Amino acid sequence: MDIKKAVITAAGAHQRTLPLQSLVDRDGTSKTALQIVVEEVFAAGIEDLCVVVHPGDETAYREAAGAHGGRLHFTEQQEPRGYGHAVLCARGFTGEDPFLLLVGDHLYVSREAKTCAQQLVEVARAEGCSVSAVQATHESKLPYFGAVGGRLDGARRGLYRVDSVVEKPTPTEAEQRLLVPGLRAGHYLCFFGMHVLTRGLMGILAERLSGAGAAEGVSLSAALAVLAGQERYLAVELRGRRFDIGIAYGLLTAQLALALEGRDRDEVLASLLELVAERRR
Amino acid sequence: MDIKKAVITAAGAHQRTLPLQSLVDRDGTSKTALQIVVEEVFAAGIEDLCVVVHPGDETAYREAAGAHGGRLHFTEQQEPRGYGHAVLCARGFTGEDPFLLLVGDHLYVSREAKTCAQQLVEVARAEGCSVSAVQATHESKLPYFGAVGGRLDGARRGLYRVDSVVEKPTPTEAEQRLLVPGLRAGHYLCFFGMHVLTRGLMGILAERLSGAGAAEGVSLSAALAVLAGQERYLAVELRGRRFDIGIAYGLLTAQLALALEGRDRDEVLASLLELVAERRR
Repeated sequence: MDIKKAVITAAGAHQRTLPLQSLVDRDGTSKTALQIVVEEVFAAGIEDLCVVVHPGDETAYREAAGAHGGRLHFTEQQEPRGYGHAVLCARGFTGEDPFLLLVGDHLYVSREAKTCAQQLVEVARAEGCSVSAVQATHESKLPYFGAVGGRLDGARRGLYRVDSVVEKPTPTEAEQRLLVPGLRAGHYLCFFGMHVLTRGLMGILAERLSGAGAAEGVSLSAALAVLAGQERYLAVELRGRRFDIGIAYGLLTAQLALALEGRDRDEVLASLLELVAERRR
Repeated sequence: MDIKKAVITAAGAHQRTLPLQSLVDRDGTSKTALQIVVEEVFAAGIEDLCVVVHPGDETAYREAAGAHGGRLHFTEQQEPRGYGHAVLCARGFTGEDPFLLLVGDHLYVSREAKTCAQQLVEVARAEGCSVSAVQATHESKLPYFGAVGGRLDGARRGLYRVDSVVEKPTPTEAEQRLLVPGLRAGHYLCFFGMHVLTRGLMGILAERLSGAGAAEGVSLSAALAVLAGQERYLAVELRGRRFDIGIAYGLLTAQLALALEGRDRDEVLASLLELVAERRR
């Protein structure tokens, strides 16, 4: 299975300026958050990228995407009908093809030479099915994420066959449905904000969103839970971390993480220590 | 002398998105850089604020200014004729009145309860003349700043009578013209990016910018050098620091400085240490 298309969702009403925020990337150059994510996508061998935006945001985003701006496709989410609907808005772009899905308010910092998107796309290419990136996460953070339950897929480290998906599970739900053998106690596999998905997922979203009560929206997790019952669907732990830049101090943390993995590591560490030490001089 | 007006310059071609960047302020809430500066201005007793912008930026800036957006005046700098010209663009707004001048790509973090703008405005009110905020700065950083030469004004600590002003002096120029008794060796009084200026300064800018060769622009420092020969003109060291958010890692440094002085100090320090320590786990 080859993956040549990607979708970035950035249509959430409270997140519209996040992709426009400025950070210094690992190579020492200033980029917008969108540009950093877009570069990661194209570096993973993706050829076509569609950004799902709030109506009216296309111009600002195209400008913010830097040198790749001209290559981007844009689709507007006309109504705020939730995350699943935002993904479905890109169906005209994805058509029958599998696609890499990223959220526009996260940055990904790999712990190895391959980026997080590269790692995920390689697994999906090799396995030929939908794969969600996940991170072992302490149960205290379950209220913020979707989480999956499953079991190791063969003997391969960090690769799981997904049986169930629950959006923001309670600790009890998690214990009953999402225990994964081999993880540290009190830890669950939570979404990383990066997936490779097949057309099957788009079909499920379309069906769910045309049904009764669909005006309230459908979560991606709900659609993935259905997918897990219909197709082979895997989860993989990547060598890297995700940073939600929409939370308080999210930009600060992401910027520091980028700097620690980058060219200017020593200089940035030194100046931060100086700042902490100098405070009340 | 009362100071009721303020001007923020934010028209530089490469700095247009800086005031729109998002940071967490000392009170723990997310604000744009512009909003943080605007709040500092109004907290200093200023009643009317004019922002000098690049043509077309008014709408985005008004939105980014938060609750004070509706109170702002805007003036466009139609041609990129330098910083002195940007200041002069606000002359229709300032008229005959003294005004507080701030640059839109700096954030100010006070070391005391009074903000930097408050400290400066109080000095200017008491002294009844133009006053520039300055910071004792090592000579290695002279290429980045305007600097003043002068002598202590009476016995008051940190207050100087300005004799000369040089924009980005060489070390030799600085040694010959800008030595200030009482500073540490190798240190000079460099601008902080915050001034209270009289109408005399606007007159000098207008004259200089209508003269021959004025199309190339006039620096604020050049105009202040003239002012120092015409009026009583002081410089004051404030209890605080300025952060240029336009330089590499400027946003990171400013954000950390805000956090270290703010409500979330301990939480932020802990999470940064954790990030540094966890890096290659």
